[in-house]
Amino acid sequence: MKKDAKVTPWEVSGKVDYNKVIKEFGVSSIDEKSIKRIENIAGESHFMLRRGIFFAHRDLKWILDEYEKGNKFFLYTGRAPSGKIHLGHLLPWIFTKWLQDKFDVELWFQFPDEEKFLFKENLDFEKIAEYLEQNMLDVIALGFNPKKTHFIIDTKHAGLMYKEACKVAKKINFSMVRASFGMNEQTNIGSIFYTAMQAVPSFLPSVIAKKEIPCLIPHAIDQDPHFRITRDIMPRIGHYKPASIQCLFLPPLTGADGKMSSSEEMAIFTTDNEKEVERKIKKYAFSGGQATIEEHRKKGGNPEIDICFQYLKMLFEPDDKKLAEIEKKYRNGEMLTGELKDITIKKINAFLKEHQKKRELAKKRIREFVYKGLI
Amino acid sequence: MKKDAKVTPWEVSGKVDYNKVIKEFGVSSIDEKSIKRIENIAGESHFMLRRGIFFAHRDLKWILDEYEKGNKFFLYTGRAPSGKIHLGHLLPWIFTKWLQDKFDVELWFQFPDEEKFLFKENLDFEKIAEYLEQNMLDVIALGFNPKKTHFIIDTKHAGLMYKEACKVAKKINFSMVRASFGMNEQTNIGSIFYTAMQAVPSFLPSVIAKKEIPCLIPHAIDQDPHFRITRDIMPRIGHYKPASIQCLFLPPLTGADGKMSSSEEMAIFTTDNEKEVERKIKKYAFSGGQATIEEHRKKGGNPEIDICFQYLKMLFEPDDKKLAEIEKKYRNGEMLTGELKDITIKKINAFLKEHQKKRELAKKRIREFVYKGLI
Repeated sequence: MKKDAKVTPWEVSGKVDYNKVIKEFGVSSIDEKSIKRIENIAGESHFMLRRGIFFAHRDLKWILDEYEKGNKFFLYTGRAPSGKIHLGHLLPWIFTKWLQDKFDVELWFQFPDEEKFLFKENLDFEKIAEYLEQNMLDVIALGFNPKKTHFIIDTKHAGLMYKEACKVAKKINFSMVRASFGMNEQTNIGSIFYTAMQAVPSFLPSVIAKKEIPCLIPHAIDQDPHFRITRDIMPRIGHYKPASIQCLFLPPLTGADGKMSSSEEMAIFTTDNEKEVERKIKKYAFSGGQATIEEHRKKGGNPEIDICFQYLKMLFEPDDKKLAEIEKKYRNGEMLTGELKDITIKKINAFLKEHQKKRELAKKRIREFVYKGLI
Repeated sequence: MKKDAKVTPWEVSGKVDYNKVIKEFGVSSIDEKSIKRIENIAGESHFMLRRGIFFAHRDLKWILDEYEKGNKFFLYTGRAPSGKIHLGHLLPWIFTKWLQDKFDVELWFQFPDEEKFLFKENLDFEKIAEYLEQNMLDVIALGFNPKKTHFIIDTKHAGLMYKEACKVAKKINFSMVRASFGMNEQTNIGSIFYTAMQAVPSFLPSVIAKKEIPCLIPHAIDQDPHFRITRDIMPRIGHYKPASIQCLFLPPLTGADGKMSSSEEMAIFTTDNEKEVERKIKKYAFSGGQATIEEHRKKGGNPEIDICFQYLKMLFEPDDKKLAEIEKKYRNGEMLTGELKDITIKKINAFLKEHQKKRELAKKRIREFVYKGLI
């Protein structure tokens, strides 16, 4: 990574060099053989794998070996409620839903509603409860199977989780969290403890089932420090190390640095209406095109830095042929930035129209998803 | 305190100088006026107050002012399950029961079953669950009112407690717990977080009632560092500071240093039979008597350092006249150490006989005491 780039669970900034992330974090890139194995099981290919949007992993081969032996894994991912859901949040969840469908597996979806409370000075539990409900609607709207999907809300399910978190916490000392998360003497003791709560869903289903079940965590790469610690601890308390599969960050509207954040004008939210999407893309979406039409026709555009093209590639154009066509035309100057933006606006709005319909229906379905069992 | 004496929530050793403890901890001694006020409300006097067994407090006057205005407090005390109950544990609970009866107030009794798990290397939750059940029997056997007594078990009630603990934890940083509890870089993150859980019962009843209720914590003085932090934080999260009333440590059999600990031969456990009590007192109870009968008759004994006399004074002889009689006779040599030991053995065994009967009956009553409500 360039020295000004930063990737931690709480901050992603600067131009991220993913090859350096792989090296520094100690994850592995996903090889062709693993992609083929996944495709064989799924019966189809997924563009996020083909295109390297999910680009890294830990222990993926073990997960596939176990699966092929008939030992199914469960999926674990999550969302710390702290604001509205934007397209960047949806990216790993869309792939997670595909995994759930194709592998026919359980998903444990954690909502650590204390995390942002602990890490943000001016956020209270009342506000978080509102975000939590809104965020759950977006997850449900993506179409997860309610029979195989279990929402775990930290403060609500602490009766299940806290004891297990203590088992993890006993094995982690202050100097480990200081090194992993940059904590210091002024860090509050809730934040210091928190990583133990994030570890719990990776083995809670095994505790409930009273037998070890492999766990696969799809997540954006910035969360890896939590799971690195989790993986260190698990064998010491009698559990499997969770495997993981990591994706790139969806870039913010204004360019390729950092990740889409929740600042109002940098992100497209799932609740934005058609006009807002159009306005944001037209006003902010960083363009890879040239300064004038004439120059663009002559030199062509640069899809690598064009945000609209990146959104199509990472989320909205699963068809490789169509994407290649757009790329070709944009690169040779045949397609103008305005046209590329129009295509993207249409794609996003078509997606959001459906999503918002399902989101509305989800309001009556929250209870189907919240975990009700006991150990 | 002498420089080798130590009073922390995890260690009490050396000869404790309680006047220095009062100064160093910043608690106040209980004055005659407060004792009189308590006696007026209670309609009787309690020997633990008269004799300075409960010797210090924080904000006791406020608790009495509020009570006299018709604003009742609730009591909060607790026990971290980690072994058998001995006489030293019972001391503050016996006084707590008297307070409950005389002031007709609720008692919240915390069993922080994760505390010793986190602080002791080789203790697991299975063993702690056994201690927990055994410890609950002793508490119930003391006769607390089941309609007004609520057991809170941290891992079981974490669904109620963890969110509230996070509110406390957000206001406490690592450097505060390092200073208060002597923690360091190697301390595990569960232990670091733990004081936030110990704070919760001091305001949980107010959260449940949706109005502030004053809290009075009777406890042995070594727990004060926890509640000092709690008191600092409470006004910052919208709650009353809990008041507290502190007792001396019951000395171990072998002498006046430290406190009765759970090592098999240093303590009298509630489950010891008559023979064991007799053997332990005869073999170990440190005597204030002289080396020979002749010398004792001439010089007399020293009740201040005599463990049997101290047990009578602190627990088993509530009658001041009878105690004074024993003291006089022992001091002037009329009563021999053997006789004093016999009196003490009889008193302890009479108490334990009753206690063990009630303890047996308590086995069917645990469910009456475990808190079942929600917020």
